[in-house]
Amino acid sequence: MKKYDNIVKNAAGREVPTIVNGEEHIPFKGVGKHIPTGRKHAPYIASCANYPADGDKTLPNLKEALIKAGLKDGMTISTHHHFRNGDLIANQVFDIAHELGVKGLRWYPSASFPCQAHLIPYLEDGTINRIEGSMNGPLGKFASEGKMQGLGVLRSHGGRYQAVQDGEVQIDIAVIAAPSSDPFGNANGVDGPAACGLLGFALADSQYADKVIVVTDNLVPFPCIPWQIHGNNVDYVVKVEKVGLPEKIISGTTRITKSPDRLLIAELTAQFCDEAGLIYDGFSYQAGAGGTALSIGNYFRDILRDRKWKARFIRAGSNKYPVEMLEEGLVDYILDGQTFDLEGVRSMRENPGHVNTSPFTSYNYHGKGNFASMIDVVVLGATEVDVNFNANVVTHSDGYLLHGIGGWQNCLFAKTTILPIPLFRDRMPVILDEVTTLCGPGELIDVIVTERGIAINPLRKDLIEKLKDSPLPLKTIQELKEEAERICGKPEKPELSDEIIAVIKWVDGTIIDSVRKV
Amino acid sequence: MKKYDNIVKNAAGREVPTIVNGEEHIPFKGVGKHIPTGRKHAPYIASCANYPADGDKTLPNLKEALIKAGLKDGMTISTHHHFRNGDLIANQVFDIAHELGVKGLRWYPSASFPCQAHLIPYLEDGTINRIEGSMNGPLGKFASEGKMQGLGVLRSHGGRYQAVQDGEVQIDIAVIAAPSSDPFGNANGVDGPAACGLLGFALADSQYADKVIVVTDNLVPFPCIPWQIHGNNVDYVVKVEKVGLPEKIISGTTRITKSPDRLLIAELTAQFCDEAGLIYDGFSYQAGAGGTALSIGNYFRDILRDRKWKARFIRAGSNKYPVEMLEEGLVDYILDGQTFDLEGVRSMRENPGHVNTSPFTSYNYHGKGNFASMIDVVVLGATEVDVNFNANVVTHSDGYLLHGIGGWQNCLFAKTTILPIPLFRDRMPVILDEVTTLCGPGELIDVIVTERGIAINPLRKDLIEKLKDSPLPLKTIQELKEEAERICGKPEKPELSDEIIAVIKWVDGTIIDSVRKV
Repeated sequence: MKKYDNIVKNAAGREVPTIVNGEEHIPFKGVGKHIPTGRKHAPYIASCANYPADGDKTLPNLKEALIKAGLKDGMTISTHHHFRNGDLIANQVFDIAHELGVKGLRWYPSASFPCQAHLIPYLEDGTINRIEGSMNGPLGKFASEGKMQGLGVLRSHGGRYQAVQDGEVQIDIAVIAAPSSDPFGNANGVDGPAACGLLGFALADSQYADKVIVVTDNLVPFPCIPWQIHGNNVDYVVKVEKVGLPEKIISGTTRITKSPDRLLIAELTAQFCDEAGLIYDGFSYQAGAGGTALSIGNYFRDILRDRKWKARFIRAGSNKYPVEMLEEGLVDYILDGQTFDLEGVRSMRENPGHVNTSPFTSYNYHGKGNFASMIDVVVLGATEVDVNFNANVVTHSDGYLLHGIGGWQNCLFAKTTILPIPLFRDRMPVILDEVTTLCGPGELIDVIVTERGIAINPLRKDLIEKLKDSPLPLKTIQELKEEAERICGKPEKPELSDEIIAVIKWVDGTIIDSVRKV
Repeated sequence: MKKYDNIVKNAAGREVPTIVNGEEHIPFKGVGKHIPTGRKHAPYIASCANYPADGDKTLPNLKEALIKAGLKDGMTISTHHHFRNGDLIANQVFDIAHELGVKGLRWYPSASFPCQAHLIPYLEDGTINRIEGSMNGPLGKFASEGKMQGLGVLRSHGGRYQAVQDGEVQIDIAVIAAPSSDPFGNANGVDGPAACGLLGFALADSQYADKVIVVTDNLVPFPCIPWQIHGNNVDYVVKVEKVGLPEKIISGTTRITKSPDRLLIAELTAQFCDEAGLIYDGFSYQAGAGGTALSIGNYFRDILRDRKWKARFIRAGSNKYPVEMLEEGLVDYILDGQTFDLEGVRSMRENPGHVNTSPFTSYNYHGKGNFASMIDVVVLGATEVDVNFNANVVTHSDGYLLHGIGGWQNCLFAKTTILPIPLFRDRMPVILDEVTTLCGPGELIDVIVTERGIAINPLRKDLIEKLKDSPLPLKTIQELKEEAERICGKPEKPELSDEIIAVIKWVDGTIIDSVRKV
């Protein structure tokens, strides 16, 4: 099987294959232009007659569960990444597959992390044909070097739900690591020694996979409440000693920045939002987990507190900062997609206002709406932006695929999307003539805030009008680019092979760009 | 179209049609014998591109929403019955359909109540072809008299979910009356002036219907939390003045009985459970809402309190009695399917241990298990029982179809099912040679408790063994029947026509019996 075939130029002008790993895909047609016509994936109808009446679905170990689930060559195996770099289960799944001599698996994680570099030998020996999912760090480097047998496919969190819902990716076996579960398979992420908050990234897997295995180190008597995952969708339950390392869900970036440049960017962003009237009593925003974003959240908090306003909701990746705001009464709800520290976990467990969400509620573009488009302000990062406001979030300026998409693409649908980014990193300008990899079309990106000026997308005439008398350093994006180049020189394009090693999906399942071998 | 055709004798020996309202159905094959082989119903894939980005799906009124949803002849329209006899919306839906001249609708309520007798003219003039759903009171009488144009189809709560999930009933338009909703369609039953507790009966409708309309009298800003119904499945939201009369969710039967005979039955039931070892630290039971069942619940409460035990969960229809037990710490969880009084509503709103469930989690037989089979003891009513322990819950001894199935069939899968029933009602014996309508196969009914003796199903050798030295008045069911006949005389069979007016579905979608015209 060819990794890819039939390259066409899509609506963004990017060359993308339409045959990927032997299956047909649709090239990107433009934002909101691809309207699906089919029906959702229809899982097999089960019968209680085939499940234990006493609800006890436990099996002695993961190997037996995988065998009972029918693990065989070429299957699609899914896992979630709520433990982030503290996951202990995905490696075990493929250790077992390797031991059983199974080949050609498609691994469909909601994201992969450096702790899973353990799987590189299985990617080399063909146990795993390919990863379809974000590849953070070493696995991304491995793919970038053209070493993965199949083609990588990167999807946003919402795009992953969409692909499963629409039957584009049919999961044979979902393995769901759960901090708490009962023998029936009702499971949650808020209780137990490995509590990681929630299990929303595994929701589609539980709903649509043929076989669903819950793995837990905290087996409680029925009912496990809250049942974030419904046992009614689960086939087998396995008890293990340790399901994950909750201390590792903490990302190194969940501290407020101390860099003067980044603090300036944060201050400019908050001031911009305020002057543009984006902050009001009842507004909503997405608080990112990076150092700059956290700092912006603090500015928002101070504004709310000073004016005795209350935000309606914060969309999170949660950590202690939004939790403090919830507890202080500065916001009605945290709508949380993944917890980034243990304060987030505690708050979700204790506080009914700290709501666990899933890619279905927040991000799935093939639903009857989702709430990403209702958020007033989202603040996102990017590795590169171009003069047309297009942005890249997956590859570095050297072309290496080192980051996942996460919910980034989905968040672009917010009412105002702001990218607070440094003008350059390691003397490499961040604003370019053209991004290495297109992840987000410029028409959805409204404002770029750098330490040396703010550029408003010309499409946002309303913002330009509101800010026309502002003392803020407003510039064109072209001016920002030129300023960076005056300081750092014109950057050279990374030298990339023509060979494609992965494709980037848009939120509607179309292919927006290709990633080339370094 | 013939109302029904092709009558066969099913595995229970009952004559049932296999063509119902022009569609093929499967005759009952025996408990656990029909194993489905197909796939679930696959709803159309939606796209956010077709829904308002700001999440505002409100329309000025229900008529406009029904027109936008494409209301036309022959469609299937669903409603839920969480307001029970206080529902205000179903009547409006069909008033509008009638006004628009739409004909031949299938009404698919989760149950219908006397307040909907308003719809009889529409059943007469062909606006509504038939009701598929429980018919309590006048609508059942109307159907029993052979006046409904189509054939009635009665399903249990679990069977209704199963039918929708499996695509046996495809809902064109679901109308969901919601005590609280946001403009996006996230909705719940716990907040607002018409709070009725939960909306679980509308879950399948929201997931599988082509078009979903939420009607509310309490529109709150996004997000409406908890979102028992996900706005991501909703097309339109309509604000009305009053969505339901919450005081009418209180059933007249939610008071503890004062009848000496019924108190005796309750006492015998509790004593039986205790002697049989069914009550233990961590046990679970279903507390019905009838006067006898409530009294049994009180005995259970006293036993738990005396022995310092704690039940793991109570399956409810909740009211103030289980709520008191939850608040006293005598039970970990109430797993609630519908609230029967406002204390139940309050508790569900305030107490994370009072869990809202749906027919999916509790009852759907075509899931990977459900929790009905995990309950230690369920206590249910019946209109008739026969000497083979078969039971009837829908027709009276005069043959009139006056009751719905509710969750009754689903509950039969509990570890021990007990029917505490009077030996006779209005001098009509309740234990017969053969039930008028078969709703529950005798093999699933374990114990009959009457004021004059207790009969254990011979299949439950374990219970017979445990009770062999009991002082309780244990008798055979034949003995109980004869005792009733000595007092009341041998009852005459109701005189029924051969004409079939409705069929009764089993939990797996097969037809277990027919209901004849009176």
